[in-house]
Amino acid sequence: MPTVTGAELSRLCVSVLQAAGAPATAAQAVAEGLVVANLMGHDSHGVIRLPAYIAAVEDGRVDPRAEPVLERDDGTVLVVDGKRGFGQVAAGRATTILLQRLREGRPLVAAFAHDGYHAGRIGAYVERIAATGAVGIAMVNSHGAGRLVAPFGGHQRRLSTNPIAFAAPVAGGPPVVLDMATSTVAEGKVRVRRNSGEELPEGWVVDSEGRPSRKAEDLYSGGALLPLGGPVQGYKGYGLSLMVDVLAGALSGAGCSRPGETWSGNGFFCLGIAPTHPAVAEDVAGLIAHVKQDHAGVLVPGEPERTKRAHREAHGVELDEETWRQLAAVAARYRVEVS
Amino acid sequence: MPTVTGAELSRLCVSVLQAAGAPATAAQAVAEGLVVANLMGHDSHGVIRLPAYIAAVEDGRVDPRAEPVLERDDGTVLVVDGKRGFGQVAAGRATTILLQRLREGRPLVAAFAHDGYHAGRIGAYVERIAATGAVGIAMVNSHGAGRLVAPFGGHQRRLSTNPIAFAAPVAGGPPVVLDMATSTVAEGKVRVRRNSGEELPEGWVVDSEGRPSRKAEDLYSGGALLPLGGPVQGYKGYGLSLMVDVLAGALSGAGCSRPGETWSGNGFFCLGIAPTHPAVAEDVAGLIAHVKQDHAGVLVPGEPERTKRAHREAHGVELDEETWRQLAAVAARYRVEVS
Repeated sequence: MPTVTGAELSRLCVSVLQAAGAPATAAQAVAEGLVVANLMGHDSHGVIRLPAYIAAVEDGRVDPRAEPVLERDDGTVLVVDGKRGFGQVAAGRATTILLQRLREGRPLVAAFAHDGYHAGRIGAYVERIAATGAVGIAMVNSHGAGRLVAPFGGHQRRLSTNPIAFAAPVAGGPPVVLDMATSTVAEGKVRVRRNSGEELPEGWVVDSEGRPSRKAEDLYSGGALLPLGGPVQGYKGYGLSLMVDVLAGALSGAGCSRPGETWSGNGFFCLGIAPTHPAVAEDVAGLIAHVKQDHAGVLVPGEPERTKRAHREAHGVELDEETWRQLAAVAARYRVEVS
Repeated sequence: MPTVTGAELSRLCVSVLQAAGAPATAAQAVAEGLVVANLMGHDSHGVIRLPAYIAAVEDGRVDPRAEPVLERDDGTVLVVDGKRGFGQVAAGRATTILLQRLREGRPLVAAFAHDGYHAGRIGAYVERIAATGAVGIAMVNSHGAGRLVAPFGGHQRRLSTNPIAFAAPVAGGPPVVLDMATSTVAEGKVRVRRNSGEELPEGWVVDSEGRPSRKAEDLYSGGALLPLGGPVQGYKGYGLSLMVDVLAGALSGAGCSRPGETWSGNGFFCLGIAPTHPAVAEDVAGLIAHVKQDHAGVLVPGEPERTKRAHREAHGVELDEETWRQLAAVAARYRVEVS
């Protein structure tokens, strides 16, 4: 299994993206999004995505040179048109303007983006908000190829994994960072078990006939992921998924999940709330101490990722052979050297 | 099983609340919250709560005459101090001012409330927002007696069921209304099974030693509810629960879940987002048509409640003997006639 440093992965991604036509700043934004996801252990949102991003550039779905346009901004609600460029660029720009408004003293700002491609790990955007002492929420929906999840009571792929991210500052410590799909799991976790041949836990997927299945393969032959809560409480994950589709899809202008769409970009929603009083971060620190007092095994969202990142920054990122082969192939096509 | 009309339940609640010291408007707000919850089938948030509310008035925890105070309002973020009165009054006032701001043309408003008692079914607040064509989110946290849920990885009651509600307008139809606990289930659903002697589904509760249990009784002898997602995906429900605690607790000024608190009020958070473009409600209608096309069994959040309400408005609310006995007892104490 090849082990590659974060710096080397970044260099590789930036070089390939630039060779494919992205300006330096866009290439860096996309590369950073991917590599930080790997460092944190979210390999499904890491460099494994680069070949697909480049394929989308090559077939014209993504314009690597697109400059996002701020199409609405009244200081409180802003909407960015990603112009079918990289999602990290569109969502990143929306988040940057949101942070600017908070800095200017606005207590509450919502930022939307439409027509950006895959925005990557959405925890990244709320982390930027929490780093300024504010509280952040982010969501993305998706159309086209992103649809994998059945509505509760159904069995067809009608919704995307519609994730929700949340971050809050913690006095004297790193922020709380939640980043979760509203499906039982992200598709990548089923893929890992398909490759390893391991059985799935109950309630993750149904087969093409809507029957509960523990075979990973069934997801890939017409089955669907179930919403968070599975066969019994799945109406909750399904309800949250609809919420994400409304906020990140209907309100952003990207539109909600729908049949027949081929553009697989992310509609993006992000909310920033300035602290309403000086002790907010202390209150959150108290909450964390309170839940951790239960048991040594209680972790806080964001904690496993920080542990993983420290390890991978020291020891490199282990990539599976297939991912590395694909990366090397795309690099070779753009005459980028792989060390 | 006594069957009582909504009108009769309302009259009963209003009369008892007024006799216990509540002004007419407060009594009506509280009664409406309770009775509508019954009509919708959420009996755990219905008139079953009245005896506890009255007990809280009698022992001085709740001031039935309290007037909420708007302690902060910059047009975008507002904070209401409930002055330890009824939660329906505090959260209702916060929502009323939020709606006023949206009507005045503000595109985004957050309303918080602290020091209100139990706010009731929080779907009620977002329904008011969606009725104006805007999108609404609401959350409440709780301290003291409200703590029932273990953090993921632990087994002690450290968090409340920390619910999330969401509503959006739908062109040509009733709104989507999600109202869900971030625990596997609300405590009331375990209580129903304890009374009926039915086994619990797997993953709902742990016993006092943290062992998975299917016995409802174990929740009431020191056990805890698990977060949504149960023993495998419960880190998601737990993460959402922390988000609710930060927004409704830390930011509202109510404070987060903590040990040793005896006041069991709700910290309240509510967000209203005006439509960003004229077709938002059409987009949501398209989303609903899209998910319903999967299977006739696919419902939309809010739909089961509407069906139940139509039935109960026509046929009355069936109450269990014990609830009716308690209501009659509290009514007798205040010399309110029960018909």
